[in-house]
Amino acid sequence: MNDNDYMRRVMELAERGRGKTSPNPMVGTVIVKDGKVIGEGYHQEYGKKHAEISAIDSASESVEGATLYCNLEPCTNDIPNKKTPPCSERIIKEKITRVVIASLDPNPYINGRGIKKLQENKIRVDMGIMAEESRILNQKYFTFMRTGRPFIHLKIAQSLDGRIATSMGHSKWITNETALKKVHELRAEYDALLVGTNTVIQDNPSLTVRYVRGKNPYRIILDDQLVIPEKAVVLTDELRTKTIIFTSVAPKNPRAQQLSREGIKVIHLKSGQTKYLAIDEVMFRLGEMNISSVLVEGGGETFTSFLKANLFEKITFFISPMIIGTGIQSIGQLGISSLAQAYRLEHVKIDIIDSQAMVEGYRDYQSIIT
Amino acid sequence: MNDNDYMRRVMELAERGRGKTSPNPMVGTVIVKDGKVIGEGYHQEYGKKHAEISAIDSASESVEGATLYCNLEPCTNDIPNKKTPPCSERIIKEKITRVVIASLDPNPYINGRGIKKLQENKIRVDMGIMAEESRILNQKYFTFMRTGRPFIHLKIAQSLDGRIATSMGHSKWITNETALKKVHELRAEYDALLVGTNTVIQDNPSLTVRYVRGKNPYRIILDDQLVIPEKAVVLTDELRTKTIIFTSVAPKNPRAQQLSREGIKVIHLKSGQTKYLAIDEVMFRLGEMNISSVLVEGGGETFTSFLKANLFEKITFFISPMIIGTGIQSIGQLGISSLAQAYRLEHVKIDIIDSQAMVEGYRDYQSIIT
Repeated sequence: MNDNDYMRRVMELAERGRGKTSPNPMVGTVIVKDGKVIGEGYHQEYGKKHAEISAIDSASESVEGATLYCNLEPCTNDIPNKKTPPCSERIIKEKITRVVIASLDPNPYINGRGIKKLQENKIRVDMGIMAEESRILNQKYFTFMRTGRPFIHLKIAQSLDGRIATSMGHSKWITNETALKKVHELRAEYDALLVGTNTVIQDNPSLTVRYVRGKNPYRIILDDQLVIPEKAVVLTDELRTKTIIFTSVAPKNPRAQQLSREGIKVIHLKSGQTKYLAIDEVMFRLGEMNISSVLVEGGGETFTSFLKANLFEKITFFISPMIIGTGIQSIGQLGISSLAQAYRLEHVKIDIIDSQAMVEGYRDYQSIIT
Repeated sequence: MNDNDYMRRVMELAERGRGKTSPNPMVGTVIVKDGKVIGEGYHQEYGKKHAEISAIDSASESVEGATLYCNLEPCTNDIPNKKTPPCSERIIKEKITRVVIASLDPNPYINGRGIKKLQENKIRVDMGIMAEESRILNQKYFTFMRTGRPFIHLKIAQSLDGRIATSMGHSKWITNETALKKVHELRAEYDALLVGTNTVIQDNPSLTVRYVRGKNPYRIILDDQLVIPEKAVVLTDELRTKTIIFTSVAPKNPRAQQLSREGIKVIHLKSGQTKYLAIDEVMFRLGEMNISSVLVEGGGETFTSFLKANLFEKITFFISPMIIGTGIQSIGQLGISSLAQAYRLEHVKIDIIDSQAMVEGYRDYQSIIT
């Protein structure tokens, strides 16, 4: 077992927190002494013990003189409103002598302060092992911390010829149940799902996690003119307090007031220059609400807005072996006239789900892993 | 070794003729006596020996009393202008006592007459082993024989969002060189390639087999108004006598006469009800010319015409991980308003070619294998 092996184990432990730690990162810790693992831990859930503390507390013997492996830099007490005691101080107090981390914590209140604190206390710090994997593991957290807005993932279910519905708006179901299960797995990893109001009008989706276990994300509706139907599931089901509507109608609008009384959060934005809301402003408002990741599920105009604004980290296409012909297109006008201007996805991964192709990639992979 | 094992070997042998036997089928033969293979053969090239004759001629001992395995029914002398002596008579003459075939020959001049002839001569005939594989192997031949028109395969190279070019017509290159090589492998298996005249105007393609070894197919251009540019590669290169233009302009049109003088075949059709040529008539004219398979390579209007006419057996999408937005769409108006009417490809196969997805399937798989 070498540093790499221990760090791989750290990643496995961290992974166990997937879908439960947000807006915190997934973190794992392994403590090694005399070539033997004497403690392990991971961050189980937002608000609970940090991985480092959990590993120290679980150690089978004294951690004095041990090496601590962790995917992220241990925290300090520089974060405002901190929920848990800082890990770096505990590490110092326990006389751990070496700390190995994959990468710095991108949280601007920590970023480098954690290792500085350890080094000032004569602890040897090694950094950079599995750094790429660490940033991929916590890609949502890294993006949120660095940009102040959520990690944005577009999810498009379409026919081979790029249609998300027929000309009459029929879209149920372009992809099959296995693909749907994959979508629900994805949903469970996001703080929020987002759709345009047309999608609510056409499909009346629940936007919940049903096919797998997992927490239900917030439901964000972009509804410039507040035309969402009164009976929409997202306004009437028991999760309606998790529905957030962005609109440009005035706060004193009776419909807006009615929705607020029913427990739905209505956020008023000035209208953009177009008939659409300004996506970038919506995203920063979500960031302020500590929503660190958002899965955008439709429809075509909404996908197009995000692409045009260059506001997305990742995109996943579920492509069904179906041909619809002219209908509702997944992506509209992007103003691209030469192929050199086209979006070329990076770090592409293709999976086969029954007879559907799942193609996903990043807008800018380099910015995710560095 | 049992009947199935021998038939599998037959298929392997037949496969060696791929791309060389058209409009004949690929055929393999194995001769077995006392549990030992004593002869093998396959149809190497159009006009050369049939597989059965080749196997008998190559036999290491007398074939009297042997079993002959063949994917297709042996031929009779009922075919007009037959190039080779009929296999059924040779089998009878050589006193082979059992014949095992995968399926009947769909050629209306043979279809059942071959086995009848053998049975009349007291030869035991067993049929149906690997029948599906046999029909897939010779799908082009089966379709041509049954319908009198070529097997039609649409090949579409597009972006994730279903665009084959930008709004300015830029399409070079949406897919990469590995995909291009796959396309050239496909081309080498077809008697003809077909494009609409817009594709010639936009891309000026060579429509030849370059990235792999193989014979160059005919090049069919649909050009209702005969607007193909004079300098088009397909009109000026050394293969121009393999270019066939379908048009509705009159034979006495000077441009048509000029093209004919230059060795290009110009076929005059009455204009259809729309601005397009009647695809079904084009296909039957190709059938009359003994063109048994055609790979349709573009553009969007041409693909749409074939889909609307329900005239295709197979379709292959090469999907590049690129997003173009509004541009030239791969498939246009099909008049589909409900998802129940959408084309759902059958027997879908998905391959990953670098970071591109290759998705292919059949319009009606059952009709291919039965």
